[in-house]
Amino acid sequence: MPGVPNGTACPVEEELHAEHHGPELQRTGKLFGGLIQDIKRKAPFYLSDFKDGMSLQCVASFLFLYCACMSPVITFGGLLGEATEGRISAIESLFGASMTGVAYSLFAGQPLTILGSTGPVLVFEKILFKFCKDYDLSYLSLRACIGLWTALLCLFLVATDASSLVCYITRFTEEAFAALICLIFIYEALEKLCHLGEVYPFNTHSDLDHLTLAYCRCAEPDIPTNKTLELWRERNVTASVVPWSNLTVKECISLHGQFVGTACGHHGPYTPDVLFWSTILFFSTFFMSTFLKQFKTSRYFPTKVRSTISDFAVFLTIVVMVLLDFVIGVPSQKLKVPSKFQPTRDDRGWLINPIGRNPWWTVLAASIPALLCTILIFMDQQITAVIINRKEHKLLKGCGYHLDLLMVGVMLAVCSIMGLPWFVAATVLSITHVNSLKLESESSAPGEQPRFLGIREQRLTGLVIFLLMGCSVFMTGALQFIPMPVLYGVFLYMGVSSLKGIQFFDRLKLFGMPPKHQPDFIYLRHVPLRKVHLFTVTQLTCLVLALVFVRKVLDLCFSNRELSYLDDLMPEWKKKNLDDASKKIEEESQVMLSEKRENTVEIPMESSKPAHVQKTHDPRSDPSDINISDEMSKTTVWKSLNSNQKDRKEGKTPAPSFPHPFMWK
Amino acid sequence: MPGVPNGTACPVEEELHAEHHGPELQRTGKLFGGLIQDIKRKAPFYLSDFKDGMSLQCVASFLFLYCACMSPVITFGGLLGEATEGRISAIESLFGASMTGVAYSLFAGQPLTILGSTGPVLVFEKILFKFCKDYDLSYLSLRACIGLWTALLCLFLVATDASSLVCYITRFTEEAFAALICLIFIYEALEKLCHLGEVYPFNTHSDLDHLTLAYCRCAEPDIPTNKTLELWRERNVTASVVPWSNLTVKECISLHGQFVGTACGHHGPYTPDVLFWSTILFFSTFFMSTFLKQFKTSRYFPTKVRSTISDFAVFLTIVVMVLLDFVIGVPSQKLKVPSKFQPTRDDRGWLINPIGRNPWWTVLAASIPALLCTILIFMDQQITAVIINRKEHKLLKGCGYHLDLLMVGVMLAVCSIMGLPWFVAATVLSITHVNSLKLESESSAPGEQPRFLGIREQRLTGLVIFLLMGCSVFMTGALQFIPMPVLYGVFLYMGVSSLKGIQFFDRLKLFGMPPKHQPDFIYLRHVPLRKVHLFTVTQLTCLVLALVFVRKVLDLCFSNRELSYLDDLMPEWKKKNLDDASKKIEEESQVMLSEKRENTVEIPMESSKPAHVQKTHDPRSDPSDINISDEMSKTTVWKSLNSNQKDRKEGKTPAPSFPHPFMWK
Repeated sequence: MPGVPNGTACPVEEELHAEHHGPELQRTGKLFGGLIQDIKRKAPFYLSDFKDGMSLQCVASFLFLYCACMSPVITFGGLLGEATEGRISAIESLFGASMTGVAYSLFAGQPLTILGSTGPVLVFEKILFKFCKDYDLSYLSLRACIGLWTALLCLFLVATDASSLVCYITRFTEEAFAALICLIFIYEALEKLCHLGEVYPFNTHSDLDHLTLAYCRCAEPDIPTNKTLELWRERNVTASVVPWSNLTVKECISLHGQFVGTACGHHGPYTPDVLFWSTILFFSTFFMSTFLKQFKTSRYFPTKVRSTISDFAVFLTIVVMVLLDFVIGVPSQKLKVPSKFQPTRDDRGWLINPIGRNPWWTVLAASIPALLCTILIFMDQQITAVIINRKEHKLLKGCGYHLDLLMVGVMLAVCSIMGLPWFVAATVLSITHVNSLKLESESSAPGEQPRFLGIREQRLTGLVIFLLMGCSVFMTGALQFIPMPVLYGVFLYMGVSSLKGIQFFDRLKLFGMPPKHQPDFIYLRHVPLRKVHLFTVTQLTCLVLALVFVRKVLDLCFSNRELSYLDDLMPEWKKKNLDDASKKIEEESQVMLSEKRENTVEIPMESSKPAHVQKTHDPRSDPSDINISDEMSKTTVWKSLNSNQKDRKEGKTPAPSFPHPFMWK
Repeated sequence: MPGVPNGTACPVEEELHAEHHGPELQRTGKLFGGLIQDIKRKAPFYLSDFKDGMSLQCVASFLFLYCACMSPVITFGGLLGEATEGRISAIESLFGASMTGVAYSLFAGQPLTILGSTGPVLVFEKILFKFCKDYDLSYLSLRACIGLWTALLCLFLVATDASSLVCYITRFTEEAFAALICLIFIYEALEKLCHLGEVYPFNTHSDLDHLTLAYCRCAEPDIPTNKTLELWRERNVTASVVPWSNLTVKECISLHGQFVGTACGHHGPYTPDVLFWSTILFFSTFFMSTFLKQFKTSRYFPTKVRSTISDFAVFLTIVVMVLLDFVIGVPSQKLKVPSKFQPTRDDRGWLINPIGRNPWWTVLAASIPALLCTILIFMDQQITAVIINRKEHKLLKGCGYHLDLLMVGVMLAVCSIMGLPWFVAATVLSITHVNSLKLESESSAPGEQPRFLGIREQRLTGLVIFLLMGCSVFMTGALQFIPMPVLYGVFLYMGVSSLKGIQFFDRLKLFGMPPKHQPDFIYLRHVPLRKVHLFTVTQLTCLVLALVFVRKVLDLCFSNRELSYLDDLMPEWKKKNLDDASKKIEEESQVMLSEKRENTVEIPMESSKPAHVQKTHDPRSDPSDINISDEMSKTTVWKSLNSNQKDRKEGKTPAPSFPHPFMWK
């Protein structure tokens, strides 16, 4: 075996001075010229795309990615469900993801890309829903119109070979984007863990000797608010005959009782053990995945065993952690999968009329937000595609940007008509998918980096992942044992391992290294270190500047009111109402202030909401449900862009939203 | 820098065929000849022994080892205190360790050896105390006699150059012993963590929704036992007027109340969070220590910074973990240091009369157990010394086995007269001490193993460690913040890192490696792999056989009754008493059986016991106190040797003692 000092250095050298993108992105000048060439290029490989998937590594890959994809799709669905009062929720999200994914895996130009739900789409849907509610329009119909317009615009982009524009995306842009997405991914994984600290409070001043005297009981509220009195009237509740101290946590919250006792946190009893057990699960998952993945280069066992363990690293970890969680028995937060295949709300079917009760002109007006949507989807989809199709991955079967975009557009139309969420290429999931399909030289000695041979290019893994996802509804029994902290740990692993292949990140790390210890990167051989640093700093600056620019644009595009919804802070007009009410005695107004939290979450209590969503206003009663005010503020980029601005504009301290300790602030 | 493929391979080769031990172990044939040569050899280095200690690495070393030594000394003292009803307890242990350690560091032949307390000594003391109690002898006096005899025998061994016998200890024996001790160390660290699971039970079937209804209150016992009634009579307690439900955990236990409620474990309320937080602390300490220690070979930061971080790895970790524990606020078990410098019991001073109230012939009879003691101490001391003095450590200032033994003997006499415990060389602590003083080539490239240059041989670290230990009584305020799980994590780190230098362990690992991946060990170059494996298997077999042999010897040396004490299982005669009592109705006998646990721990309640020890019968009331029945059974080797045998002899299942999951069973 030839001694390659650094696995990636030599092969890259040959290709470095070749042009950045292949002939796939040359403009044809003909209508649908690019698309036709894409199909011609991919068709000969179609059969081999399935034959090449017959491998144990592919089994490992789809088992891992199935687990990794499930949680975001369901979480996204849950968030959307709360944002749209159940019009589009978890089951729609599962169905949509599965259908789009299967179609994409079967017919896309680059089936290695994994489609998923993205933060910006969620924000868009939320604004749209509020808009429809305010102007009394049918949300699902208007959304179908916008979706159809977007699909049409995508088709237009395909017809004009617009995707060839991505040839202007160099490593500079591509890597900055990927690094950003990966960092957000890591940050959100950690933030989700921190969020568990809010859902599952623990007693920081616990006295073991006084445990016999510790309790946290439900009690009648000292001064019931008007809201509470109204609720009691509605339900024919007589406060004096309610057996308050015998109520469970959920019952107490539903009757607006208060919690009293030494074992009470802010919103209910302290939950023993759950937070710390979740932390153990989270980090164990991360470290065990990382350790098993690296097992390939360990000295022990024959090559075959090591590479199998390495391939199945994450799936093995999940299985072990699920078993461990089951044995320990601490009620950690679990993955909740819908168990029935039917629309969340009874008042909608699987087909949506694009006009419905909306006035006819909305169909035309929908083209304006569709333009924004198209840009969003085009950028998201194509930058990810560029990252997947990069030269370093040594793909042999070619790419198909036009075909990719066509599939995304077509499925967007289908999803819109059926009232399902939209899906585009998800960067981190796609990188993870590619990494899990890496072919490496088997005879490598331990310690030495194994030589990278290529990617197992096939359509089978993607297909099976999304088929399985569609069948998840029938696997609820098994999936409900998967603890969420384990999945968060998998996210952390995915974010960290995706960062590894990014040159930008490698160059950032060079800052901390004395020159004599720097690895043998090819660019360090040909470019002076000073210039490498300059390039890195420029890239970092651009990244920051781009963020600042986007934020400025947001200042112009979004109204103050819209932004207030985005972050769910108390809006200006509500504050005024409160000011008016402050004529009353101070104590009563304080009660109202504390009631504020309940007010904003009162909406889901209306009877039209399905049982699944009704519980969500109580972060304590069923922790697997998501509190929108917390979750929404966690769409990291948007939060950071808004919160700073609002603080400045309204001149007030931020509401007690979730802290974001290290990023974007 | 010359490219050495494996840091240790080349230098070892030259020395391999030299004789195993130097001239230090040649028999002189003169009285005290070896001792005189030892002194002559060490004297020229005496001044440099202090000058060489002026280094930052030594500061890191003593800070680390001070923390590592404190906990065993105090735990050992606590165990001894329970075994001897406070006659020798934590403060005596601290004082004895400090005094012996200072004297040894100043005058020993090999000051790199760290003295500590060992399991066998504890078992010996326990048997002796029971014997004295049964035959109404003064324990401290008899012990002083035995100690003086042992010291005399040690002196005899020094005079006759008996230490030169250790030249027959080859790598074969030496490494088997070291591996065994390290494995026991690792096992005990993990077992201590598991033990926390008993002390801090958690609710494995916790229902978050029913937290409002959870409680665990004290209540009057349904059927008070005779023991309980007697206790109430003694204390003038009228059960009916005791406010049972308002009692704290400690109060409830002291009045023999029972715990009722959904949040109750077997012996009291479930302790929320403590166990999981302890687990986090334990593993975080281990991983952070390991990570920081390996930081020396990372690519980041200049060499100086990296080596400093690496040197201070464990101390930094302890500091971080103490701060973290303080911030989180969960009441984890803390290190409890005595805060007053005075004998634990009032009826003894700092000087013990070797005859006292014992008959005169006991002074002579004491020579028989002293013989056993001498063998024990000689073996423990000299094998450890051999491991420290091995060629691979490249010691330049020579060793001094005779001088070592003289110092141990002299301090043994002093400790016996003053009624303090005995200390001999502690294997793992000594190896850790040597490892923390390693000098390595600084210019090593990352990835490459740094070249080993030697050990910083000096007396200062040992001296400061034991001086600090003596002053710990005045530092109680600071030391009480150190959580025990952190120290257990340090033990795990010490055990694991001590295993690394052992060739036997390296050879064991070869079994899992395909030949082509095996490291470039010198012996693999010159010995066929098959023969290396044969050697390893032989060594392993001998180790197991030696254990079996010791167990057989125990069968002969110890009476059944003594063994029953050693493991604190219910002895035969007690069983017979119970059999006689079984004429009563079955329910009452069952109450008695469950009372058994209380019976055996009733002794500490007598008023002559100091307050510190009185609490110990309750594992829940103050978790830092140690339950002798649990702790005693944790002296691993002895437990394993005995429990199996007893099961066989008495033909009954073992009592609910602590499980030992993977070793010796």
